[in-house]
Amino acid sequence: MDTRVEPLWERLLAGDERAVARAITLVESDDPRGRELLKRARPRTGRATVVGITGSPGSGKSTLTDGLIAAARAAGRKVGVVAIDPTSPFSGGAILGDRIRMTRWHTDSGVFIRSMATRGHLGGLAAATLQAVALLDAAGFDTVFIETVGVGQSEVEIVTAADTTVVVLTPGQGDAVQAFKAGIMEIADVFCVNKYDHPGGDRLRREIRAAQELGEHGEWLAPVATTIASQGEGVADLVRLVDEHRAYLVANGGLEAARRRRVRSEVRSALGERLRRELVDGEEEAVDAVLAGRLSPEEVVDDLLRDVLLRSP
Amino acid sequence: MDTRVEPLWERLLAGDERAVARAITLVESDDPRGRELLKRARPRTGRATVVGITGSPGSGKSTLTDGLIAAARAAGRKVGVVAIDPTSPFSGGAILGDRIRMTRWHTDSGVFIRSMATRGHLGGLAAATLQAVALLDAAGFDTVFIETVGVGQSEVEIVTAADTTVVVLTPGQGDAVQAFKAGIMEIADVFCVNKYDHPGGDRLRREIRAAQELGEHGEWLAPVATTIASQGEGVADLVRLVDEHRAYLVANGGLEAARRRRVRSEVRSALGERLRRELVDGEEEAVDAVLAGRLSPEEVVDDLLRDVLLRSP
Repeated sequence: MDTRVEPLWERLLAGDERAVARAITLVESDDPRGRELLKRARPRTGRATVVGITGSPGSGKSTLTDGLIAAARAAGRKVGVVAIDPTSPFSGGAILGDRIRMTRWHTDSGVFIRSMATRGHLGGLAAATLQAVALLDAAGFDTVFIETVGVGQSEVEIVTAADTTVVVLTPGQGDAVQAFKAGIMEIADVFCVNKYDHPGGDRLRREIRAAQELGEHGEWLAPVATTIASQGEGVADLVRLVDEHRAYLVANGGLEAARRRRVRSEVRSALGERLRRELVDGEEEAVDAVLAGRLSPEEVVDDLLRDVLLRSP
Repeated sequence: MDTRVEPLWERLLAGDERAVARAITLVESDDPRGRELLKRARPRTGRATVVGITGSPGSGKSTLTDGLIAAARAAGRKVGVVAIDPTSPFSGGAILGDRIRMTRWHTDSGVFIRSMATRGHLGGLAAATLQAVALLDAAGFDTVFIETVGVGQSEVEIVTAADTTVVVLTPGQGDAVQAFKAGIMEIADVFCVNKYDHPGGDRLRREIRAAQELGEHGEWLAPVATTIASQGEGVADLVRLVDEHRAYLVANGGLEAARRRRVRSEVRSALGERLRRELVDGEEEAVDAVLAGRLSPEEVVDDLLRDVLLRSP
């Protein structure tokens, strides 16, 4: 086993993009070599800046991420991007946006972009995404962006596993934006009102401020950047705010907390995934047993856990 | 054990409200007697009409539920209400509304109302709620309403465990309603536009219709009732639509499916609750082991399941 992983591990450590791509694929397909690479990578994580970017479709999030990539590249940093493509009715266009971006950065070996598709269930996706981040971190990528369409609960979990979470909103998107705001006000470390030149831009900025005043927040009050990403306007300001949040984390031990949060999220995700698989098999029998009064749900859970263990390798 | 449960069980079967209240408390506090009562109750479930009612705070949901209770009482049915009071920033007023209602129906022994509070986590609340419904069903209550403020994922799960789910919307609530709509369009069996006389009432009705046309739906297209609950207007129509949905379920085997769905939800909830409790203890150690490269998240899950079983009674 180790002998087969060795050359790939060496190349991964050296930051070889094709090795990283291969390692992520191995992890995604649950290959034992992927697990071995990940184990080796773990102690080497914690160096990368991990920035989560979320926003409803059409918020110009991809264009904005592009601007952030360019800024990081201009600062001489190696950049990894993990983009999540959930099979959700809200995600239309994400894949296309990705393709365009991949073409743009294709010739720049300092930028690695990977699209993660849902593997049946978002639980598995969360783990796979965070594991890709860990591999990129260990491979020496300085900044890793996690980009997601932040509609579902699991996607929110993924993006909040970043050191810094940027929430992108746009004026005049109606329902989608409103829904989006309602669920994610609390997760933003930095807000970004993109398409700020559109009607309602400043109103949206004030609405965010008002909502913040109503809600609770800790020591850090998420600042609001205003951008016109398509013209590159305000992106430097957004970069500055993200850096300020990082400085705040450094001063408060928040970076190590975020690194641990990611692993916790992975463990929970792995657990959920495992049990979901097991439940599918025995669930109808379990329901019969409960309905007949033979077992309580708690006894079903005992039985289930016992079965899972018996089948463990 | 059985000897201590016997008198309570007899009274429960006879529909004694105080026995039902006591049984729910025993279940809520995870008392072995509660489990025993539930086991006995299971084979006797499946007779009650279970209706879920959800809507954002301020939608007049409580007043509407009151109207539904009155209609069921006028038809000579015994009514149980399980109201969920999540400790959410969105739930303000739920408890007060409940108190007013309890006073109104206090002298009517054909109405049983129980408020379920969150027990730390909604996972446990989901199970406790569905177990209260099962007890009411076995105790001969003809109609059981599950009322919830439908903001969170877990609350949506609870309310969709009903045979029929009524989603209450109100014109002019701005963000809250919009957010609400976005997440719950798919779960409604019957829509209810309450405060229909307020500005935007008919527009909201048309928006729901338009959203339905965009989305997917099966054979049943959720009808839209329009009500002014405070004046009792339209409530009879809502009752008729709920009855029609039930007739549709009866014709398609949907009632048994709903009964099984509730038990499945209970089993999942019990499993989640159990693992959450276990995770809390060992989680930081697990994170250390993963970060050090000693264990993979999957191996942590194996260890965790083993620990859980070793500690099983």
